[in-house]
Amino acid sequence: MAEFTHFNESGRARMVDVSAKAPTERVATAQAKVYLQPETLEKIQRGKIAKGDVLAVAQVAGVMGAKKTPELIPMCHPIFLSAIDISFKEEPQPDRDGRCSITVTATAKTSGQTGVEMEAMTAVSVAALTIYDMCKAIDRAMSFSDVWLVSKAGGKSGTYTR
Amino acid sequence: MAEFTHFNESGRARMVDVSAKAPTERVATAQAKVYLQPETLEKIQRGKIAKGDVLAVAQVAGVMGAKKTPELIPMCHPIFLSAIDISFKEEPQPDRDGRCSITVTATAKTSGQTGVEMEAMTAVSVAALTIYDMCKAIDRAMSFSDVWLVSKAGGKSGTYTR
Amino acid sequence: MAEFTHFNESGRARMVDVSAKAPTERVATAQAKVYLQPETLEKIQRGKIAKGDVLAVAQVAGVMGAKKTPELIPMCHPIFLSAIDISFKEEPQPDRDGRCSITVTATAKTSGQTGVEMEAMTAVSVAALTIYDMCKAIDRAMSFSDVWLVSKAGGKSGTYTR
Amino acid sequence: MAEFTHFNESGRARMVDVSAKAPTERVATAQAKVYLQPETLEKIQRGKIAKGDVLAVAQVAGVMGAKKTPELIPMCHPIFLSAIDISFKEEPQPDRDGRCSITVTATAKTSGQTGVEMEAMTAVSVAALTIYDMCKAIDRAMSFSDVWLVSKAGGKSGTYTR
Amino acid sequence: MAEFTHFNESGRARMVDVSAKAPTERVATAQAKVYLQPETLEKIQRGKIAKGDVLAVAQVAGVMGAKKTPELIPMCHPIFLSAIDISFKEEPQPDRDGRCSITVTATAKTSGQTGVEMEAMTAVSVAALTIYDMCKAIDRAMSFSDVWLVSKAGGKSGTYTR
Amino acid sequence: MAEFTHFNESGRARMVDVSAKAPTERVATAQAKVYLQPETLEKIQRGKIAKGDVLAVAQVAGVMGAKKTPELIPMCHPIFLSAIDISFKEEPQPDRDGRCSITVTATAKTSGQTGVEMEAMTAVSVAALTIYDMCKAIDRAMSFSDVWLVSKAGGKSGTYTR
Repeated sequence: MAEFTHFNESGRARMVDVSAKAPTERVATAQAKVYLQPETLEKIQRGKIAKGDVLAVAQVAGVMGAKKTPELIPMCHPIFLSAIDISFKEEPQPDRDGRCSITVTATAKTSGQTGVEMEAMTAVSVAALTIYDMCKAIDRAMSFSDVWLVSKAGGKSGTYTR
Repeated sequence: MAEFTHFNESGRARMVDVSAKAPTERVATAQAKVYLQPETLEKIQRGKIAKGDVLAVAQVAGVMGAKKTPELIPMCHPIFLSAIDISFKEEPQPDRDGRCSITVTATAKTSGQTGVEMEAMTAVSVAALTIYDMCKAIDRAMSFSDVWLVSKAGGKSGTYTR
Repeated sequence: MAEFTHFNESGRARMVDVSAKAPTERVATAQAKVYLQPETLEKIQRGKIAKGDVLAVAQVAGVMGAKKTPELIPMCHPIFLSAIDISFKEEPQPDRDGRCSITVTATAKTSGQTGVEMEAMTAVSVAALTIYDMCKAIDRAMSFSDVWLVSKAGGKSGTYTR
Repeated sequence: MAEFTHFNESGRARMVDVSAKAPTERVATAQAKVYLQPETLEKIQRGKIAKGDVLAVAQVAGVMGAKKTPELIPMCHPIFLSAIDISFKEEPQPDRDGRCSITVTATAKTSGQTGVEMEAMTAVSVAALTIYDMCKAIDRAMSFSDVWLVSKAGGKSGTYTR
Repeated sequence: MAEFTHFNESGRARMVDVSAKAPTERVATAQAKVYLQPETLEKIQRGKIAKGDVLAVAQVAGVMGAKKTPELIPMCHPIFLSAIDISFKEEPQPDRDGRCSITVTATAKTSGQTGVEMEAMTAVSVAALTIYDMCKAIDRAMSFSDVWLVSKAGGKSGTYTR
Repeated sequence: MAEFTHFNESGRARMVDVSAKAPTERVATAQAKVYLQPETLEKIQRGKIAKGDVLAVAQVAGVMGAKKTPELIPMCHPIFLSAIDISFKEEPQPDRDGRCSITVTATAKTSGQTGVEMEAMTAVSVAALTIYDMCKAIDRAMSFSDVWLVSKAGGKSGTYTR
């Protein structure tokens, strides 16, 4: 099992030196799953048509959040993000706990020396937080879970699929 | 059930007008639960002593992330955050899926016209993302879940405990 | 006619000292007018229903831009912005130059020692820039004009209406 | 007439994928025109020598604003900006409405997969907003207009001159 | 001698809870001293008149840097900064090492629950770094020293003068 | 002696055009020296083990500060920073003024058209400011000095060692 790469020999955090890495095309996809009351999901879906589109705001927040990744995650490199796209999949059928869900999926791309896993992970987290913010006045118990990397490709460590 | 407050009468997002609200003391606590391999948790715990403290980096990231909340969440008000504290509780006993966990808890305070739920939620999310970033080279399947509001107090809507 | 207040006695820029001012309720409204081809406006209006809502993105950008005012305008004070709302009024009837228009109006509020004129002005500018960005691939000659303060109230200089 | 490129097939905003584009040298020039009272322009011109240089502050704000473009305009790519220069041309002769003007022109350059139109447009807008901020205490009716792209070169869509 | 206040009982950094503190008027002054070659200082002084004013850029950078303090210094509270002013004092007489100097002094004010020492310290540091950046092509050995708090007033710990 | 390059022919600041420069590997090292009371240094050293690690926070702040360089220093180019590492060397032997010291050293790397001197200089400054912030309650007279470029390599001006 490899050692942490984010620490120098004094045991202090550093931004890993990637200057010797070859630039390659990289892509990463992450997801988060927002749990909410059936009535809340219904309102979100009605709002898309007429009264205020929660997911449109979350989409913009997620895209802008992806660009903020190196400001938020201390040891992340600043990168040229060449694409970020976010989609939402609503599950209107309540689960056994009576909760509906919205799965947020984000795909980020770059051409460079570091991957874009954190950009995709940050995008879905910020989109999920924004959904929570927009709906918290009517459903304070909302939560999100299963924030994970779905897949990645490019770079020395190659392709990964969860 | 109340209407979304974050939209104006044209159905467009707005930052809610809180100018008529009385300033009160407000506090909010949120959590996130990071799932990881037992070997990864072990390395994090060994690192605290000698080789690089992942959680110290996540702690700083979470505190700084809380301050970035109004930049990340589109309809959040800028606020004077009067306190933010983060703690980690490690569960070294693997669950039935063989995963260990670290529960991140953040408490935010302010005195003002809006609450600090989003600051606490953002703090735990950024701390969890940072743990993922620091460890992803050795445990790419790490994830985080159960990001929710634990409790809040202050403001018109009063006290809430999950 | 008064002197510039944003310079100290050495003729160097400073952030004006407002510590002796009484906090008051303040509100400001600004506007910008985006000129575009009739076909572009038509696409924006069709998109609102089905294919991608340009103005929803501009709205979020304007709200977030308002919060960035003290980062953008060097001598602006950081403030607690208690409300920001933006609206769009489309003029589908071409003017004598054959151009249609969208008027962006933003109203900002705060309770404090400085006004929110710049927050309203910045909000409409960023919203107009975003409309340009979203449509520039199909209408590169778009422009915006008449960025001005519509009205303000509160503070020592009192009420102003253009 | 082309379709909007900033939306995905669900009609949600995305950052356009430019990863397949060839990097080329790109340059863009934009302008904005600030209208002000003759007395205000006179003060600005006197200040350049002795009492406080409004345009020096606007220049710095415009350069820094250009660098903030991807933070302000939601679907803009982060880029390596290789040059940004701003100039001011004062028109002391009042127009038929009795207003003088300052034309702000900005030229941005990059070598990459996306253009710098928005960087140039943002630079002139932030410079114009800063001039307004510095002078608003003495000339609240100031405004700016004719914010547009003067020319661009480089990239697939080639050269454009207004 | 007091304990560090910036750590919680687990020894992890936190933003100190100031919610119980009474808001008071606070002011702080800090300084930094930039050392440079006599020829460099001469160029800076000539530039103020005609060829490009280094100190005007450093002034704007220092003011904007003060506003970024809570983004830079992890445990600093976001505050409403009510004033920031910066001045430069040039010493054209070379010291025994043959170096001239520019002393940068910044005074920050706020009314609130935390002090503005860090805002003043950050302002002078960013101004000094900017002078270095503007002149480094002609005087790479420039340095700055004696960055310290000159005085503060307000708050529980009262007045301090170095 | 060369002219300032950061000004255009009107004597106004600009971001120097580097588009014609060849991208090369660049590295820069800078330092700052923090002076503090022997008791303060002792507390910092004890804290590393058990009670709160001041230098761990300063390390993270320095790394994140390096990434903020183009936001802080007006004429700095945004860059892809490929590595940043920071180390601390403590001098527990008091000097003739009775002060101990911590020397902060930062090394930054990039592959591009501009150097990383300012990133290294900003990293040490922000780390030094953070040490001051964390300890100021117990040692308000702390200061830092000797902020300078230790060495650089790469780029047209070649290698420099102080």
